[in-house]
Formats: sequence, structure tokens, C-alpha cells
Amino acid sequence: MPRPGDCVTQRPIAVFDSGVGGLSVVRELRRALPAEPIVYFGDTARVPYGTKSPRIVAQFAREAAEFLLTFDPKLIVAACNTVSAVAMDALSAVTDVPVIGMVEPGARGATVAAGDGAIGVIGTEATIASGAYVRAIHHINPGQRIESTACPLFVPLAEEGRLSDDPIVALTAQTYLTPLGELSPKAVILGCTHYPLLREAIAAVLGPNVAIIDSGQEAAHAVAAMLADRGWLSAAGAPASMRVFVSDNPTRFRAVGSRFLGQNLESVELVDLEPHAVPSRIAPSVR
Amino acid sequence: MPRPGDCVTQRPIAVFDSGVGGLSVVRELRRALPAEPIVYFGDTARVPYGTKSPRIVAQFAREAAEFLLTFDPKLIVAACNTVSAVAMDALSAVTDVPVIGMVEPGARGATVAAGDGAIGVIGTEATIASGAYVRAIHHINPGQRIESTACPLFVPLAEEGRLSDDPIVALTAQTYLTPLGELSPKAVILGCTHYPLLREAIAAVLGPNVAIIDSGQEAAHAVAAMLADRGWLSAAGAPASMRVFVSDNPTRFRAVGSRFLGQNLESVELVDLEPHAVPSRIAPSVR
Repeated sequence: MPRPGDCVTQRPIAVFDSGVGGLSVVRELRRALPAEPIVYFGDTARVPYGTKSPRIVAQFAREAAEFLLTFDPKLIVAACNTVSAVAMDALSAVTDVPVIGMVEPGARGATVAAGDGAIGVIGTEATIASGAYVRAIHHINPGQRIESTACPLFVPLAEEGRLSDDPIVALTAQTYLTPLGELSPKAVILGCTHYPLLREAIAAVLGPNVAIIDSGQEAAHAVAAMLADRGWLSAAGAPASMRVFVSDNPTRFRAVGSRFLGQNLESVELVDLEPHAVPSRIAPSVR
Repeated sequence: MPRPGDCVTQRPIAVFDSGVGGLSVVRELRRALPAEPIVYFGDTARVPYGTKSPRIVAQFAREAAEFLLTFDPKLIVAACNTVSAVAMDALSAVTDVPVIGMVEPGARGATVAAGDGAIGVIGTEATIASGAYVRAIHHINPGQRIESTACPLFVPLAEEGRLSDDPIVALTAQTYLTPLGELSPKAVILGCTHYPLLREAIAAVLGPNVAIIDSGQEAAHAVAAMLADRGWLSAAGAPASMRVFVSDNPTRFRAVGSRFLGQNLESVELVDLEPHAVPSRIAPSVR
């Protein structure tokens, strides 16, 4: 928690994701809060998180947070639905800096849009298996009807630069979403920060009567509200600085990331995963 | 290198891959060498390697080899084309134990099958970008005509359990391989250990006159030849033992891995990525 007397308003917002997906959240943050400096970390050496276990996702999230804390941020945004679904407690355990995830804002936006209608949730295998969205929605409205579907191929499709006009994307969206559409949800949550890039293909299957809720956009509004509420908004003039770090392959990240950010990524810096991580046998006798 | 007097024949073959793909190589090894004990490591915490940089793939490969060396293997098989394409030198630097990769055996098999005809190579982004197959083929036959194509979606498709009869697999194979087929190659190398699971869909696009070369199968034959040549073949009776380790999610690995192995995976053990890896800034002044 920032100490009284610190000039908290000048401190950056720290944002992290398994890879480039979180840049779609940064795009929304910069729209809502153009005067806030941002530090971003994408764990491209270990992307994706969505097919991995809660245990390892929590470990990677803690490591990302520990790196970002060296920048003394006023707020951390877990711009990854998988992290938000399974690792919020692990993040709170390593820092007093407030952490905002994707799930709670996404759930809130969907309940507003759906009213008494059903809500659909789409996300990675790990996010859907966690049941985090179901819990968050039922916390707001215990009677809400919810249908969830994992869409694992959407992440590699978006990472490869195949967007809504690609026939493979259209067929994949049809395969995953036709059963969901038949349940006539009033709102569907894009529960993965890669999915806004495939929004048109998703909307084409669901039809014009379904509200599409972008969890990253909702989270950006939650960040703006929290900063305003606490008096932590930057007093500096826009546009503020942005620094971007990745754990692998900055060249590929610049090329792919610019699509997610909606503008050119000027500079991407490489950080090392240190120290040398050697897999060691889990031996209860020595732990 | 095994020391004279060691009972090298009894020592296991160590096999590693970024995830489950290498089990398709284990299947071939067990067919060719049923009496050889096998220790397998799948780096499921950091899978996939095929979209990552040579630098980080080499680091991960060294770490996997260091873990497997604790089992005192007589031979290490890099059952991952991406590792074989970019990290063979890094592996040789950490051990005197012989390392067999996928690229050289795959290239050899293809030149035999293709004769004077063209060879097609398909693989991950990293494998194709490395040019390793082109170098290996031209080392054998400098005049050989070669066409290479990266097929990044094949790995997540196979991992999701979508096989040759799936319409998304068929459309993806068509999209990637129709241009390659138009060049009328005589042989096409499956330069990724995931691809044998999609073999029928790949063959359907290429047509009946193209020889499909499975790099893992070729590598298993190379292993058998080397062991026989050195007098290192196991004298024990078949079937030999197999131990399987992963760095994340053993439950998911068992489910997906059984498809790759062609039989049930009985037990999968979890190993920890230790010590805690904290990303640190690359600061030339302190390195």
C-alpha cells in the first residue's frame, strides 16, 4: 500500500500477461487514462498460461509481480484472465499494492448487460475449469444462468495473426460457439485478453442480439474508477510513457503486439529468467 | 561418455521434449528397442518451444538435459525438432553423453525417399526459421531442391485432441499445404513430433505420390543403429521400464500423452522448476 507522503500519483501502473494478449488491456487503459505511465511485462518465454495448472500459473504470476514491483507501481493489473481466475490470492500474498484482475470487472459488466437473461463465458481451458467467472457472477446475482465454453484454439489463432476474416477462424468460432448461441445468452464475456481480436468472428456466430463484454475494457474502467476514488490519478499531461518488457523474443512481440495495442510498439526490452532454473525431482523427504 | 567397465548396456535412454509430442518418438523407440529402459521429461510448464527464440530454447534444453543426466543415461534423444534445430551445440556443451536429434535422421530419410525430386519440410516457426533442415539436407546432397513451410496451428490442434477427421484440421492442412503440394515434392518431412498425429490429414492434401517421412521414426532407427554399433544394446528381456516426468499438469499429460504413445500412460511424475525463477533486468553493467 502506498505510504502517506509518497507521491503516489506519479507512480506507474504495472500490467502483466503471459504474452501479448494483455496489450489489448493496455489499449483500453491508455484510452481511459492517457496520462498514466505504464510498465508492461509479457512472459513470452513461458506463454501460454491457459493450458497450464493453477500451481504453475500462480508461480509464474508471483515471479512477474516480483519483477514489476521493482518499478514501484501504484497498482498492478493482472491483464490475463487465467491469472485472474486462479492466482489472485498468490498475488495478494507477495504485495500490498492493489491488484486488479479481469474476472470481477468482466462479471460485473455482464450482469448489467444480461439483466435476467443468461450469460455465456468463453475463455482458456484453465479459466473455464477454475469456475472463477461462475463464482464471480453468482456473487453478484446468485440466480443468474451461466453457460461456459473453453476455446483453446483462439489464442494460437490470434497469436498467428489470423483474425476474423480468416476462414479457419470462422470455422473454429462456429465449432466452439454454435452450441453456446443456441442457449440464447443475452451477454457473452470475452474471458481472455486475446479474444477481442477475434470479436467480429465471435459476434457473427452469436448474432446481433448478444452483448459482447470485453473483460479488458471493463477492467480498464475499474482501474480508472479506483484511481479516481483514491485520489491517485496522475497529474501529469498526456501522453504518458510506456515501457514494455518480455522474457523472450522481443522482435516477434513487437510484430504481433502492435496488432493488440492498435498502434506501433516502439521499443521492447528483454529480461532474463534468472537464476538458471533446473528441474529438480519433487522428493518429499528433502522438501 | 560411458567409462570402460561401466555396465552401459543397463543404463536408460533419456528422451525429452517441450511436452507430449516426444511420446510419438518414444512409441517408435519402444517398437524398435523394446528392451531399453526409458526416462522421459516433458517441459509442460513452458510448452510450446516452437514459437520461441533459439536463446530461450537452448536454455530450456540445457535444463532438461541436466535433469535427465541425474539418471545416468547412455544416450539422450532430443525428441523435439525445435530443440534439434537450434540447440544441439548447447546440449553437447553440457554433457559427453551422445545426443541424437530429429533433424539429421529426418533429412537422411527424406533424401533416400526423394532421390532427385524435391523435398518439402514442415515444422514449427522456430524450426523452419532456423534453416536446420535445409542445411542438413544440403550437407547430404548439395543440389537437392527444398521447400519449407511453418504450420504453427498443428501443435495446438494435436494438443487439443483434434485429429485428421476434424474439419478444422482438414481446413488448416489445406491452407498450409496446398501451396507446398503444387510444387510436387517427392517426399515431405514431418519436422515436428506432433505432426504424426495429423498424418492422414496431411497426406490427404499432398496426395498419394508423396512419401511422408516421420522424423521421429527415422530418429528411432538411428538410435537403434548407434546402440548396436557401439555394443550398447540392453541384454535384459523386454518389456523394459519407462518413467515419465513433467514440469506441470501430470493429469492433462496422461490424457493427451496416451494418444501420442499409442498406449495408456500408467504413471506421470511431477518435477519442480527450481529454484524460483525471478525475471531480472538484463543490465550489461551488472552481467
